[in-house]
Amino acid sequence: MKELSKLMGYSENTKVLDATLRDGGLVNDFFFPEDFASALYKANLKAGVDYMELGYKANKELFDPEKFGPLKFCDDDYIRSIVGDNMTDLKLAVMADVGRCNYKEDIHPRNESPFDMVRVATYVNTIPAAVDMIEDAAAKGYETTCNIMAISSGQQENHRIALEALCQTPVEVIYIVDSYGAFYPEQISRVVDTFMDVCAKYGKKIGMHAHNNQQMAFANTVEAVGDGVEFLDATYAGMGRGAGNCSMELLLGMLHNPKYYQFPVIDFIEKHINPLKKQGVVWGYDLQYMLTGILNQHPRTAIAFTKEGRDDYAAFYKEVVALD
Amino acid sequence: MKELSKLMGYSENTKVLDATLRDGGLVNDFFFPEDFASALYKANLKAGVDYMELGYKANKELFDPEKFGPLKFCDDDYIRSIVGDNMTDLKLAVMADVGRCNYKEDIHPRNESPFDMVRVATYVNTIPAAVDMIEDAAAKGYETTCNIMAISSGQQENHRIALEALCQTPVEVIYIVDSYGAFYPEQISRVVDTFMDVCAKYGKKIGMHAHNNQQMAFANTVEAVGDGVEFLDATYAGMGRGAGNCSMELLLGMLHNPKYYQFPVIDFIEKHINPLKKQGVVWGYDLQYMLTGILNQHPRTAIAFTKEGRDDYAAFYKEVVALD
Repeated sequence: MKELSKLMGYSENTKVLDATLRDGGLVNDFFFPEDFASALYKANLKAGVDYMELGYKANKELFDPEKFGPLKFCDDDYIRSIVGDNMTDLKLAVMADVGRCNYKEDIHPRNESPFDMVRVATYVNTIPAAVDMIEDAAAKGYETTCNIMAISSGQQENHRIALEALCQTPVEVIYIVDSYGAFYPEQISRVVDTFMDVCAKYGKKIGMHAHNNQQMAFANTVEAVGDGVEFLDATYAGMGRGAGNCSMELLLGMLHNPKYYQFPVIDFIEKHINPLKKQGVVWGYDLQYMLTGILNQHPRTAIAFTKEGRDDYAAFYKEVVALD
Repeated sequence: MKELSKLMGYSENTKVLDATLRDGGLVNDFFFPEDFASALYKANLKAGVDYMELGYKANKELFDPEKFGPLKFCDDDYIRSIVGDNMTDLKLAVMADVGRCNYKEDIHPRNESPFDMVRVATYVNTIPAAVDMIEDAAAKGYETTCNIMAISSGQQENHRIALEALCQTPVEVIYIVDSYGAFYPEQISRVVDTFMDVCAKYGKKIGMHAHNNQQMAFANTVEAVGDGVEFLDATYAGMGRGAGNCSMELLLGMLHNPKYYQFPVIDFIEKHINPLKKQGVVWGYDLQYMLTGILNQHPRTAIAFTKEGRDDYAAFYKEVVALD
């Protein structure tokens, strides 16, 4: 049988990235409580997490800074107010969306910024723009990833073409992003095969960013580990858009590298995440997200259902089936 | 790669069993609202579910009927008040626990009872008693299953011995019960291999009953389908002890036999399960269950934590780690 997770051992090459602030920020428009980000930073240090993504470098001409918390924009000075000089082994990442980031101006050279890594998020049809952003960030000294979103709605041959183009760039990691939470583990395995076919030739690493629409975010991440994927995204208590992400506490409970320590994650969830939930911030598996996941649709209808406080799931079923 | 779920096709041999009343009854001591069971019966009929488990045949000398709802005991007349004569394709099952069921008296011949199947639940060290119960039920005309609990805490060689003993009986299905929610999919695959090794020789089928401590109940069930497991337990919205079970809505969304229909499940959850949750009936993934799952412990400490309304997860972590 296939050794999915090499359960009793571990690979030094496996890296865990905490995306709580970035994907979780999509739930609350980045309005986190005052001490949330700095406490999370400390928890990540204690937990042995490898990378921490603090938010987006969003274009202030497109997004009104009045309407979002500061991690939507991740100004360098604001980040320094959280992490200081970050003289630690925890590397700091920021996400830049194709078409939504004024990267030439807003991303400063690495040696002048608190960040170590720029993650470029793109759909498969905007790869040329992503390539330009990757080259810009790499030239400024950053580690780079390219996060290809909505993989479940793309064609395998287009993915190959995209991967070949990305592999000509300095990008270090190419991420499979299951934006719709549509995949089962065996489908992840097939997608990884396609990615590995191209990426291995060029020495590029592969990453996994899962969503929990079908309660598969953790299972798909475990599958990916066994398939040779090295960069693993997770969030505390799965906090993230819609159905949320792979839970950090589950992931650190599974990985066997003794550098990882689960307790700080649990402590942070008790002290900082559960209070958010009690205040009414909502994410996680629910029927509306399951339905868009199964139908391989963008979760926007499900997110709207949640925001409107609806609980007429049967009516929603009829709506999305009619949409399909 | 391994075809886990044969995703585009389906097997006629796959059977879905709804365990909502039985495993869900462990959450609320079987005090379901008046119309809950009959509405669930109707939903299962519409959804194409193959078997419906209504509860336990518990010994009234051991369990006080004042302290539990009627589905703890499943008196034949009470069941008939829910399902009438059940002139349908939906087969009805009841669970009998080794040591907790006065089966010789309380289980009546199949042709005098509303039930079609008796499911005998046992630990691996009480197999001889389970064998007697299976033979009794089979002699009374029932289909039988044997549900071996806490598989993750047993030794493979003991499982082989247990399976060889069970395979000498008329039992039709032998269930892998991941009582502690401790397994990852690849471990399920190994356990199924062991079970298949013995069971295939005797023409016995294998079943899967998963718990969601690590958000793996559905993923482990999908894994089991791909490994040739034919009987699949699920519950509406995962309702079940502790972290709950594999969710029926997810399972029917994955299986491709057109006889299964997801809408009645969603409709029932909206109208009957979500109101229970609003009334404060609690089950499902949470950190305390994750911890006992990872530690391969019985969830009783986690269930107590939940019942006491505690939210000091970090303290609980210290308690269970010290217990281990």
